[in-house]
Order: sequence, then C-alpha cells, then structure tokens
Amino acid sequence: MAELTDRVRAFARERDWDRFHTPKNLAMALAGEVGELLAELQWLTPEQSAAVMTDEELGPRVRAEIGDVTIYLTRLADVLGIDLVQAALDKLEDSGRRYTVEAAHGSVKKLPADHPPGA
Amino acid sequence: MAELTDRVRAFARERDWDRFHTPKNLAMALAGEVGELLAELQWLTPEQSAAVMTDEELGPRVRAEIGDVTIYLTRLADVLGIDLVQAALDKLEDSGRRYTVEAAHGSVKKLPADHPPGA
Amino acid sequence: MAELTDRVRAFARERDWDRFHTPKNLAMALAGEVGELLAELQWLTPEQSAAVMTDEELGPRVRAEIGDVTIYLTRLADVLGIDLVQAALDKLEDSGRRYTVEAAHGSVKKLPADHPPGA
Amino acid sequence: MAELTDRVRAFARERDWDRFHTPKNLAMALAGEVGELLAELQWLTPEQSAAVMTDEELGPRVRAEIGDVTIYLTRLADVLGIDLVQAALDKLEDSGRRYTVEAAHGSVKKLPADHPPGA
Repeated sequence: MAELTDRVRAFARERDWDRFHTPKNLAMALAGEVGELLAELQWLTPEQSAAVMTDEELGPRVRAEIGDVTIYLTRLADVLGIDLVQAALDKLEDSGRRYTVEAAHGSVKKLPADHPPGA
Repeated sequence: MAELTDRVRAFARERDWDRFHTPKNLAMALAGEVGELLAELQWLTPEQSAAVMTDEELGPRVRAEIGDVTIYLTRLADVLGIDLVQAALDKLEDSGRRYTVEAAHGSVKKLPADHPPGA
Repeated sequence: MAELTDRVRAFARERDWDRFHTPKNLAMALAGEVGELLAELQWLTPEQSAAVMTDEELGPRVRAEIGDVTIYLTRLADVLGIDLVQAALDKLEDSGRRYTVEAAHGSVKKLPADHPPGA
Repeated sequence: MAELTDRVRAFARERDWDRFHTPKNLAMALAGEVGELLAELQWLTPEQSAAVMTDEELGPRVRAEIGDVTIYLTRLADVLGIDLVQAALDKLEDSGRRYTVEAAHGSVKKLPADHPPGA
C-alpha cells in the first residue's frame, strides 16, 4: 500500500499534475472511474455479476476499472494526508458499534444513526 | 491491507450479509459512498478543498467517508478475487506507457487510447 | 420544464447561492444525489427494485431522490445554457444512428463508437 | 418532456431492451453517465467550468453527456411511474420549507433534516 502511494505520487509529479490534484478534483476523478466500473456491471443480472471475472472480455476490464478506482482513491488519501487502511479500520469499528451483530443479522436496513445531523 | 480484507469479510459474514454482497450491489454501494464524499466537497473552492482536513468539522467527516469508500472497495475486490494493490500497480504501469512523461507533461488531456473500443 | 427551470433559478437566487453554482460544483451535487438514489436501490433484487414504488417506505424516498436529481440536473443545464430536453432528443437521434434496431436488438453491448477518441 | 418520455420508451422497445431496464439497472446507467459528465469537468478550474460551453471541443461533449444523463433519468422515471417535473417541484417546495430564505441566505450548509432517520 505504501509502495502504491509512492508510485502514484511519483507518477503525478513526473507529469507535473500536482496542481490538478486538489481533493475536489480527485474526488471527481474517483467518481468518474466508479462510473466506468458501474457501466461494466449495469446490465448484468446479479448472477452474471457474480461470475464476471470468468468472462474473458469483461473480467480484465472490471479489474482495470478497479485498478483505476484504487489509484485515484490512493492519490486522494495521500493528498489529504489520510492513511487509507487506518481510516477504513476506524470506520469499520465505528460501524460495528452501530450495526451490532444481533440487530443487523440478515438485514442491511440503514439505521438512523448512519446519517447523523449534518452528515 | 490483507488485515482489512479479512476484517471486512468477517464483518459481513457475522451479519449474514454475504448474500447481499454481489459485485453489482457492492459497486452501487461504493458509488453511493463516493457520492457522500462528493457531497462534503461540492461547494468548496479548490483552495478550501485543499485545506479541508484542517477544518475540525469537515475533516473527520471526509476521513470517515474515505473510510467507507475503502471498505466497499476492499469488499468488492475480495468478492471478485482481485488483489486491489496489484490491480492498481498494473493499471499504473499500463497508464505509464500511454501517458508518457514527455507527452503528458503538464497536461491532463485524455488520450484516445483511454477509451479503447468497447471500454 | 420551463417552469421548473424558473423555480429552481429563483430558489437559488433568493438564497444567494448563485456563486456556489458553477457547472463543476453542480455536477458534483448531481452526482451526490445520484449516489443517494443508488443507496436506496443497492441491496434490492432486480424484482424488488421493479416493485419499489409499491413499498410505502421506500417509494416516497425514491421519488424524493429522483426529485433531487432532477433539480440539480435542471439547474446545471440552466447555468450551462443547455435545453435539457433538446439535448436529450439530439443524443437519442445520434444513438439511433449508432445502435440501429437491427444490430442492437436484444443486446446492450456497447459499440466502439460509444467512446470516440477523446470522449 | 412527455414527447421525450415516449421517444425514449420507443427507443428501448424497438431494441428489445425492456428486460434490461429495471430501476436498479437504470440507476446504475444514470450514475455511469453522470460519471462521464464529471470526467469532462474534473480538471477544470471553477472559472474554466463556467466557460465550458464556449470551448468548441468540450462544449458539445458536455452537452452530449447532459443529454445522456437526461435520457436515463427520463427512462428511470418512466419505468417507476414517476412524473419527473412534478417530483422535482414537490421536492423544491419541501426544501423551501427546510432551507428558508432567511436561514439559508448565502450559506449552503446542510441542515440536519436533510438526512432524516432512515434516509
């Protein structure tokens, strides 16, 4: 992960792209790549989507889109000074307190607390 | 990263959420979280977005959204059997061949090859 | 549609929001609202999503999200000076030439021309 | 607007695409098109984005993306049985009650009620 962060940072620096890489712009780029990922999956049935990696045409394309999403997410976190994995672990712990195993079992219904005031 | 993958997997399993976690559904959830991230940054100027982590109200919210995005991306990659970091490194190498340092210097203009036929 | 455009414009003006409403910011807001719409549908099966308007809890929420998406899309088009309906009719005509009824029958496979160079 | 709805419906029917057009799939397609729109604007400064329609290369592309977004939003509303314009007008009225002119003047800060429990 640290290596990826370094590689993405160097990639941007070598091309003099730092000035384009504001958090706002990078969040848009991230959303654009997620949009391309959705486009690959949008007409598939749930079952087809579950088997997408066995499709010799779609599989590599989905993997490439996942790569693009990861690149921009890594770059965004780097620019913000956020440790990606630690932010996810912290959020997971937080979610674990709100969606207890007992209450959330078999149900993905959102809890009111998922959107606290102002969030 | 491997620990995060394991923790997210366990989190879903304990709550019996595996059946909801098709690639299609997870890609939608990922996009939903990216949408929440955009919502935090949408009205900021580029300069304000660059300083967002110093804002005591916005900073923690942006970090939490980054955490959520990372959780769903990690889960999606796990379900697809994709190594997230390796997919990003491979894509970066591929992009390096297309956007050479010389040609791309200071310009983020998209190249035709960024959208190959069918992509 | 013209009435909606006027109403949304007045809404923004009365609140002195014009300076926030750059095309860039509005596109982000649009994406944020689409993210909320996805979040309402993400865990549903295709069949459940087809019946979502009969659900007394989800139905009104989906309708409200569609309303939000339409508001921001209308505002964005107004700021850009684009006639929303005409832009869609033109694009539909264009797509009709590329996805002929004969070639596209029963298949949503993307054609190469859907992503022309630089698009 | 009614004409557009009819034209989009006929477009899908002629190509036998109705079975692909579940609300879930169409919401994903909508998000994919919004992603393409974001991609056109992501590296622009706010000022450049405000002048994007005067750019002879970018302007038509932005218009085409707006067209695509409108097509999928229209189709989604049709499949859900929602009147797009009325849904927007209703939401605008609702927002007017929450973001009063006095309280919201010059500030786009989200109110707690923007995310009611469960939303």
